[in-house]
Amino acid sequence: MTLFLELLLVLVLARALGEGAVRLGQSAAMGELVAGIVLAGLAVVIGSRVPFFADLVASEFFEGAALVGIFSLMLMAGIELTPREIAEHSAALFGVALGGALVPLTFGVALGLAVLPAGEAQFIQAFLIGVAMSITAIPASVRILADFGLLHAPVGRMIIGAALFDDVLGLVLLAILTALSVTGTMPDAMDFAILAGKVAVFFAITVGLGVHVYPRVSRRLRTLQATAFEFSALMAVAFAYGLLAELLGMHWILGVFMAGLFFEPDRVGFRAYNGIKLIVGGVTAGFFGPIFFASIGARIDFASIAGAPGFLGAVILLAFLGKLIGAGLPALFTGLDRRDALAVGVGMSSRGAVELVLLSIAVEAGIIVAGPQGGGGEASYIYSSLVVMAVVTTLVTPALLRLILRRTAVDGAGSAPGRSRPHHPDA
Amino acid sequence: MTLFLELLLVLVLARALGEGAVRLGQSAAMGELVAGIVLAGLAVVIGSRVPFFADLVASEFFEGAALVGIFSLMLMAGIELTPREIAEHSAALFGVALGGALVPLTFGVALGLAVLPAGEAQFIQAFLIGVAMSITAIPASVRILADFGLLHAPVGRMIIGAALFDDVLGLVLLAILTALSVTGTMPDAMDFAILAGKVAVFFAITVGLGVHVYPRVSRRLRTLQATAFEFSALMAVAFAYGLLAELLGMHWILGVFMAGLFFEPDRVGFRAYNGIKLIVGGVTAGFFGPIFFASIGARIDFASIAGAPGFLGAVILLAFLGKLIGAGLPALFTGLDRRDALAVGVGMSSRGAVELVLLSIAVEAGIIVAGPQGGGGEASYIYSSLVVMAVVTTLVTPALLRLILRRTAVDGAGSAPGRSRPHHPDA
Repeated sequence: MTLFLELLLVLVLARALGEGAVRLGQSAAMGELVAGIVLAGLAVVIGSRVPFFADLVASEFFEGAALVGIFSLMLMAGIELTPREIAEHSAALFGVALGGALVPLTFGVALGLAVLPAGEAQFIQAFLIGVAMSITAIPASVRILADFGLLHAPVGRMIIGAALFDDVLGLVLLAILTALSVTGTMPDAMDFAILAGKVAVFFAITVGLGVHVYPRVSRRLRTLQATAFEFSALMAVAFAYGLLAELLGMHWILGVFMAGLFFEPDRVGFRAYNGIKLIVGGVTAGFFGPIFFASIGARIDFASIAGAPGFLGAVILLAFLGKLIGAGLPALFTGLDRRDALAVGVGMSSRGAVELVLLSIAVEAGIIVAGPQGGGGEASYIYSSLVVMAVVTTLVTPALLRLILRRTAVDGAGSAPGRSRPHHPDA
Repeated sequence: MTLFLELLLVLVLARALGEGAVRLGQSAAMGELVAGIVLAGLAVVIGSRVPFFADLVASEFFEGAALVGIFSLMLMAGIELTPREIAEHSAALFGVALGGALVPLTFGVALGLAVLPAGEAQFIQAFLIGVAMSITAIPASVRILADFGLLHAPVGRMIIGAALFDDVLGLVLLAILTALSVTGTMPDAMDFAILAGKVAVFFAITVGLGVHVYPRVSRRLRTLQATAFEFSALMAVAFAYGLLAELLGMHWILGVFMAGLFFEPDRVGFRAYNGIKLIVGGVTAGFFGPIFFASIGARIDFASIAGAPGFLGAVILLAFLGKLIGAGLPALFTGLDRRDALAVGVGMSSRGAVELVLLSIAVEAGIIVAGPQGGGGEASYIYSSLVVMAVVTTLVTPALLRLILRRTAVDGAGSAPGRSRPHHPDA
């Protein structure tokens, strides 16, 4: 019954702080993460007198819930994204997306190689820092862009299109990362070539099935008209794709993501899409998501950050600079004015849920350690700093973007009527 | 990754056989249960060569999934039942319901006391057999009654009303059973009085909150208009009620059931009700339900049944006779003609999902053992026979009821236009 009490406490606290965060114009995930920090704090302060709190934070419960949360968040991310939105890009958008991923990636790898102690783990940890920096979360920016009616203006289309692309690219990079972490050695050109081949095979299969088989199967299923059946089918595809990804040496989350990606209204029908989205969205945002984000917060070790404050500062600075240079400069070159280009660079800075998922996976794979309950202690400063970076970039980006766009809007930039996009899992 | 493969295999096989069962006019749960039998059979036949199957059936996976399945099935049962349907009864219906529960209960206890070896476990096991017999599942009968347009005729109203009542009564009896199993001794009058008091307190609190607080809270929540939030709230209430039930010495499933029971359209609004029902229904029927029923099937030990064929025969016979006498005779006394009374007695014979949930709980509580993977071996004949009884009564009832009603219909019994009821979890 302790489990029920744990679930009740975590769920109520996380949801309450999550709703509070939404009222403050932030994403619910940020409030839910703070709930985890509060619980970890309670474990430290009163854990000796009330062992329940110490047991809660140290239990396998968070670990298990976090895994299910990752599954659920990735499936939802796939369902909400439309493949067309990722594929539909001009050369300009492609440049912004690639620069916005590769520059922060390079910054992160360079930082890791510069400050981490030399050794076997150095390259893989440096690569992880780079991947964490390369990610872009969209939801916060989407809301601000919609507020300014800029969602369909060039600046809005560029931010969202490039962010979508970078999210997917981040997942592929993570797949490469976990594959490399298994061998444990510095990869050579041959290793990379083999991995690239496997990634290509994976996408060829999942995209091929998504484009050609999803519509046919769903047309036949449509006669059944039962949401429960469609949910079974989606779960089965998610497990199958997850297995395929693992067989090809990638992480299963990429498979789960791809299972949801081609689940679109025009492929499976509106009724099926809306029903499944309500189910997966409700379960994710209403249950597994809050527990996942709380588990992330509970594993931040502020003491370990205090032991390496320079690292945290560098991570946050490079995270902003990387997107500003990597995405902002190409945007400027493609003909956006300076303030719009600045908006692109700033608007792509928030990392959000996908980075947090990535960090959990890295902890699970043994690439880095989490603390204090992850047992990492001082060594958990990489994990803790990257989580704080995700939080800071996600919290600060909306305010900065609002500031920049307010001026742009006054200057009379193109302003199409705002149309709200469906919410991303961490929105 | 073995877990993904296990989930994939169990889900696909269970759903395929479940859909097959539906095509044959049976409930999906029966097909899903057969999937478990098939998997257990594969483990026996090819388990030595393909250890995957042996590991699958013996794994903790089934145990964990079964627990989540029970939670999910009980929540759904609560959501689908309307308290008014249970409370709205004439004295006649009350007599049928009470007889239909107490006569099979008495038969089961008598059988247990007669054939089980004397000892500490005898009374509690005999009581379990009685409780298993006292349950009535409605979904199969509902479909048949609707086919004949008798859902709102006296015979239909009596079967459904009494079955609802017996389902709830069965849960209360289970609560008493698990409470008694903790003390391990033969209860005296004082024990029963204390337990009755606790049951009364539990219902006073949950019914009171359901009637008076649900509508107020949901009226305030309605402004939020977010299904995810309502799902969080429902889960929190389920955990809280589950804790309350355990604190008062009852099983948590009664709390989870009560959390869903007062979740009704006229209390929480239609949008919230439909959204939550789609989520809980989709997750239950599409994922956790099939895995639960497969886990039930996988733990039947046919060898143990073969070792005590007389017991199985007696259980099945008494299960039918108990409802026939206990529910059929009162129905006859209240003025129904002989064929309608027969229809009531037969229509209340199917046990369905609730009995299977009850058996899982009993195994978990250590009252009986399951086999072959439950490790029970020969001793698992009680579990195995009661599962087979649930299957047989659930499979045979629709056909028998159809046979009886066909004659009644020809005789021109009252036939209101058939209106379909929402599906029960094991429909």
